[in-house]
Amino acid sequence: MKRYLYTPGPVMIPESTLLEMAHPIIHHRTPQFSAIFAETLKKLKWLFQTEGDVLVMASTGTGGMEASVTNFLSPGDKAIYVNAGKFGERWDKIFKAYGIEGIELTAEWGQAIDIAVVQKALDDHPDAKGVYIQASETSTGVAHPIEAIAKLTAQRENTILVVDAITALGAFDVPMDKWGIDVMISGSQKALMLPPGLSVVGVSEKAWKLNETATCPHFYFDLATERKKHYKNDTTNFTSAVTLIIGLNHNLGLMQEEGLENLFARTEKMAAATRAGLEAIGIKLFAPDAPAASVTSAWVPEGIDGKAFVKSMRDDLGVAVAGGQDPYKGKIFRVSHMGYLCEWDVYNSLTAIEKGLASFGYNVVMGTAAGAAAKVFNG
Amino acid sequence: MKRYLYTPGPVMIPESTLLEMAHPIIHHRTPQFSAIFAETLKKLKWLFQTEGDVLVMASTGTGGMEASVTNFLSPGDKAIYVNAGKFGERWDKIFKAYGIEGIELTAEWGQAIDIAVVQKALDDHPDAKGVYIQASETSTGVAHPIEAIAKLTAQRENTILVVDAITALGAFDVPMDKWGIDVMISGSQKALMLPPGLSVVGVSEKAWKLNETATCPHFYFDLATERKKHYKNDTTNFTSAVTLIIGLNHNLGLMQEEGLENLFARTEKMAAATRAGLEAIGIKLFAPDAPAASVTSAWVPEGIDGKAFVKSMRDDLGVAVAGGQDPYKGKIFRVSHMGYLCEWDVYNSLTAIEKGLASFGYNVVMGTAAGAAAKVFNG
Repeated sequence: MKRYLYTPGPVMIPESTLLEMAHPIIHHRTPQFSAIFAETLKKLKWLFQTEGDVLVMASTGTGGMEASVTNFLSPGDKAIYVNAGKFGERWDKIFKAYGIEGIELTAEWGQAIDIAVVQKALDDHPDAKGVYIQASETSTGVAHPIEAIAKLTAQRENTILVVDAITALGAFDVPMDKWGIDVMISGSQKALMLPPGLSVVGVSEKAWKLNETATCPHFYFDLATERKKHYKNDTTNFTSAVTLIIGLNHNLGLMQEEGLENLFARTEKMAAATRAGLEAIGIKLFAPDAPAASVTSAWVPEGIDGKAFVKSMRDDLGVAVAGGQDPYKGKIFRVSHMGYLCEWDVYNSLTAIEKGLASFGYNVVMGTAAGAAAKVFNG
Repeated sequence: MKRYLYTPGPVMIPESTLLEMAHPIIHHRTPQFSAIFAETLKKLKWLFQTEGDVLVMASTGTGGMEASVTNFLSPGDKAIYVNAGKFGERWDKIFKAYGIEGIELTAEWGQAIDIAVVQKALDDHPDAKGVYIQASETSTGVAHPIEAIAKLTAQRENTILVVDAITALGAFDVPMDKWGIDVMISGSQKALMLPPGLSVVGVSEKAWKLNETATCPHFYFDLATERKKHYKNDTTNFTSAVTLIIGLNHNLGLMQEEGLENLFARTEKMAAATRAGLEAIGIKLFAPDAPAASVTSAWVPEGIDGKAFVKSMRDDLGVAVAGGQDPYKGKIFRVSHMGYLCEWDVYNSLTAIEKGLASFGYNVVMGTAAGAAAKVFNG
């Protein structure tokens, strides 16, 4: 069966990348690899839109999240975090593991955080060392107001803004330096179009200053040592994930060919077209107020078992979308717009969703969603 | 230029594995991937020779080493470690990061630890919670006496034996259950014949007991949670390194086809042949008393710049061997026998070493080393 992967990570990997990574492996402690690595770091700075340091480690994005806690905070420190989904929750789990006092700000799943809530928390807790948040909460398809929050943290000398951009980087505009984000994290299997196994972390000077006094224990995820190795020796502290880094360098090249503006416009158009298509067939969006361009979430129509629907899409139709997580398991589904996708993928996914829903008794005229999506693409 | 990689990790990857990993990616939270993962875990238990749990995480082997500290010890705990090379040193760095009191036992680089020294340390420190050691110290090519040490720790209810088998697992016999090893660690880019990016950790019941009371902080490297996810849900706690795990499953299949006994005999024969070949051309072995089958280390002849020699081997001859590390940089070189290698690779590497040495003025009759090696292969 021909298969399409429209899940919000892993996403489909370009054929040229798969072949690039299938070349015989080279050793990481060589001038050959160092040249590739140095090139990759330059391109990453371009993608992060930062003059600061971007670091690459062999782990999933969660490793990058942990590093963004343990390298900047000390046990007993206070940090604000936004919990509006599965990945927002994760901050607290990491905080608890390292003795950080988390100040929780919540929004309903499907809603973005209210900027006034963040403002109040910062005022109430001037000693909070950081604000930890997702740019795109993958579990709900919500984009949080990062630019506005960055304006608040930028005014505070001792509070950094840490942004999990795992499903944002390379999908929509989160300019690290321009907005004043201090730590920004991503992972390889999202808009970077790679297999899972790499985390990338951008770090500002303000964050490095905090790093100097941070005492949370860490060894494998040691950003200061990685900084030295990356930028003085063109290498990583421990064995480099050679194959993934070679793939990353290749994919960043593809992204540079397209250009950031085009990349973001393409992603946003695919998201808008998907939302229009879904609404045209009566599907309610899960995050209508603040949808992320990287992933569209929508309610499974009442009376349909969401788990069975997602399973049937994948196994019967060959078109994988993601289900909901935790409280929304079986209730919502999610479609990715990250990476190696174009207009035709939107028609594919929408038409498959129509067929999938129809097979569960949903009343839909096939082609309706694609028709509505086409209007978005064709203006 | 045709290139050969005889470094002790990364090692050459079978062509079939490269192609297997170049298939379109699949999602990790699917029955399809879970079936592969469950199969992989079974095969890993076979390779570890254990009925216990083997866990797979997205990190390099060092992540596995860190996990073997933070999941079993508490700050203030005492642990014995053997420092006889670069990787032995690493235990102490991890201990320091997490507030463990390390009891250091040393041997010269190139020597194995004296079992009497371990015995004495265990007697002097009955409160030591663990003995941390390398099965094969990659930086020196030495095999430590793991079986004898396991006999000592097995008698002690509250002391676990933690073995870094990163360049041992799949290269020579380190039967986890039979010898009574409590925690055993490996990494993907060694005898597992994969790109870097996976660590694998085997854990005994005795170690799990210690895990229950261990308080060193950890989140990403959480073995108890991984155990549940691995063995109850056929998945990983965080995003699975899908591609590497698929490659791992494939490679474990290749290893099972060959059989453990044949695999170890092939590796040992390649190592013995390499040692014989090097000695036949007057090269002194660096670890003659306790050579590991996985990697042969030897002195660069006096008067030759070891760094230039290794560089010339790689860049002029296309045959990469590794140089020495830290105090032995430029003084020794190292040749791997792990993974996808056979008799012909031994002749290749030895003859290239002859040619490389000759180009630096060393007096050698080409073919001498291969001739001596052939005697080992042909009995």
